[in-house]
Amino acid sequence: MTPTPRDWAARFSDRMARVRASEIRELLKLLDQPDILSFAGGIPDPELFPVERIEAAYRRILADADLARQALQYSVSEGYLPLRQWIAGRMTRDGMPCTADNIMLTAGSQQALDLLGKLLLSAGDTVLTARPTYLGALQAFNGYQPAYLDLPDGALSGAGGEAFEARCAGAVGYFVPDFANPTGRSLTLSEREGLLDLADRLDMTLIEEAAYRDLRFAGEPLPTLLGLDIARTGSIETARTLYCGTFSKTLSPALRIGWVCGAAAAIEKLVLLKQGADLHVSTINQMVAHQVVSEGYDQHLGRLRAAYGAKRQALLAALDRHMPPGVAWSIPEGGMFVWLTLPEGLDGKILLERALAEERVAFVPGEPFFAEVASRNCLRLSYSMPGDADIDEGVRRLGRLIARAG
Amino acid sequence: MTPTPRDWAARFSDRMARVRASEIRELLKLLDQPDILSFAGGIPDPELFPVERIEAAYRRILADADLARQALQYSVSEGYLPLRQWIAGRMTRDGMPCTADNIMLTAGSQQALDLLGKLLLSAGDTVLTARPTYLGALQAFNGYQPAYLDLPDGALSGAGGEAFEARCAGAVGYFVPDFANPTGRSLTLSEREGLLDLADRLDMTLIEEAAYRDLRFAGEPLPTLLGLDIARTGSIETARTLYCGTFSKTLSPALRIGWVCGAAAAIEKLVLLKQGADLHVSTINQMVAHQVVSEGYDQHLGRLRAAYGAKRQALLAALDRHMPPGVAWSIPEGGMFVWLTLPEGLDGKILLERALAEERVAFVPGEPFFAEVASRNCLRLSYSMPGDADIDEGVRRLGRLIARAG
Repeated sequence: MTPTPRDWAARFSDRMARVRASEIRELLKLLDQPDILSFAGGIPDPELFPVERIEAAYRRILADADLARQALQYSVSEGYLPLRQWIAGRMTRDGMPCTADNIMLTAGSQQALDLLGKLLLSAGDTVLTARPTYLGALQAFNGYQPAYLDLPDGALSGAGGEAFEARCAGAVGYFVPDFANPTGRSLTLSEREGLLDLADRLDMTLIEEAAYRDLRFAGEPLPTLLGLDIARTGSIETARTLYCGTFSKTLSPALRIGWVCGAAAAIEKLVLLKQGADLHVSTINQMVAHQVVSEGYDQHLGRLRAAYGAKRQALLAALDRHMPPGVAWSIPEGGMFVWLTLPEGLDGKILLERALAEERVAFVPGEPFFAEVASRNCLRLSYSMPGDADIDEGVRRLGRLIARAG
Repeated sequence: MTPTPRDWAARFSDRMARVRASEIRELLKLLDQPDILSFAGGIPDPELFPVERIEAAYRRILADADLARQALQYSVSEGYLPLRQWIAGRMTRDGMPCTADNIMLTAGSQQALDLLGKLLLSAGDTVLTARPTYLGALQAFNGYQPAYLDLPDGALSGAGGEAFEARCAGAVGYFVPDFANPTGRSLTLSEREGLLDLADRLDMTLIEEAAYRDLRFAGEPLPTLLGLDIARTGSIETARTLYCGTFSKTLSPALRIGWVCGAAAAIEKLVLLKQGADLHVSTINQMVAHQVVSEGYDQHLGRLRAAYGAKRQALLAALDRHMPPGVAWSIPEGGMFVWLTLPEGLDGKILLERALAEERVAFVPGEPFFAEVASRNCLRLSYSMPGDADIDEGVRRLGRLIARAG
């Protein structure tokens, strides 16, 4: 009867069969070698963290005996009320009229996706998403064993076809309308309206992820799906869209603070799930975030936009300079990513192995970002971390490799 | 086609039917009135938070540019290695030889329970637990739709009966061997051995929650289930027990830092679930906790034990003084709770309504703590928050009410 280590596999629930190691995360563990020029990590540039403001906020809160007692104690699962009120005010100004009752704080938008999966998905339910889509969302949803459906070309202008629309009925849609990870692409206004038309026609619930929305450095802001939805139905309480925001890309991902905004009836249920999942977000981190955003968030965002906009310019210029014919790429108006489409026949994963070995340059192959049917001749470049000289040199090496491999 | 607010109920997955508001949490929202003497909240006394050490740790980390960049950035899902190593060293000294590979950090032990539910439970699986048991564990597990089975008297000496053992086969057992919430009771050494015998006989996986283990103020420490399990099988890699620890009761619950300790094969899978759930615990909070525990954790625990031990003495003395005949209570050797059994026919919930209205005193009724079959003539008292004078006066009022009601 003595168990052996192998027994553990038999003890895991059937749900675990779909939960596998992320290739990106495994890969990132290998990228600590300092001589590699990396476009792999989609993480914020630590030089842009508001360290002094964050340090001052921790110091001020912990130096006040009453605030310290509150900051270090258990707190409510919906989150710190002043921060929820601040977020509701900001969402309202961004075209999504709401109150603190429509906001629940989460441990980053990753937890928002996990709790939304728990709320909305049972095994076999359909998730409709872009092609490619955010890998972290797939990881959050996989535990609930949904079936995935790629959004086909033309679907947002009503030309998805009958078979597609039959599969969509009652589905949950997951989309990143602004500067999506991994493509950097945004939905146009008419695509946003088309998505809502589809959702209304087929009674879909929509999850809108807005992780990069505050990082626009070109073009004009477009209304969110939730904002358009509220305009249609007259109130957030009747909107079918649940919006996920985060401070991870703008303040610091290490605070683990994101939020869900939507109908109070959904937020109430999410609060119960949050309570069972981990009780609440770190109280002190919520108070720190509230203090930091109350002291000039827009000014801080201006600094981020300028910095990431310049890095994106450097990457686009380097691509123009160094990429061989047959390679295409997205032109992001915000966020951290450019999506490269390679000549047919090239495989991003094989190219990565060669890039690491032959050119000491790294990126993320495109394949893991596809929910239903994968493409192989694609990859994701992030410009958030490297400096201008490394961007140019890295792209030069990558272009040289692609020319050799093609 | 315009959705109405009511539509939301139809959008929730069938799993949500079992997820309901915690009566305790709803109740606690009503307890902010300052004239109520409350034994309700099972939360640490904020006067015992190591505020100065925590403040110094945040300050030191954020004042160092390299540490600050690390502390505010994304980090690995398994947790901050120096803290995992520190925990592994401490677990080893407490009779559970292990390494950092056997430790994953979680957002409090509540998240450990949620992720263990996700790892181990599918709908209809059996969870065996004490009667009564920890409400938060039921909330974590409910999302995975298990069936619950109460541990009957005599089961830990092999006298549970055939029908009981048949229902146990392959179950997951959840137990709090030291100073359980809500009863304050501990399992004796022979009960611990009996539980492992049962688990070995029926191939059960055990979840051991040790949230209060560091808060013993009377009696001699007993080995943990995991420690006894390792002693039987020779290695943590073959043990069937997964142990959940936390800093919530000893440092601060607001940091949201707990851990799971167990076979590396299980930890690897839990890390994937943690990644999908919320990526990782707040990086800066992990670094702060590591710094604080590295600077004299045992000395800090000594202070906590003395303080909670004195409060427990005050409560037991007040119960002796003021309770009418027919009321019985547990004698905890650690932790924060005493369990009261009322005369048959009294109902803790009805008593609470009268206690709030007639005597301005609060506690938690016992009924929500039962997994399978509930008792009503019981309630939980926590002595962690009130001062000695309030403890005596609160118990005097409660005794008076019970005498009137009985």
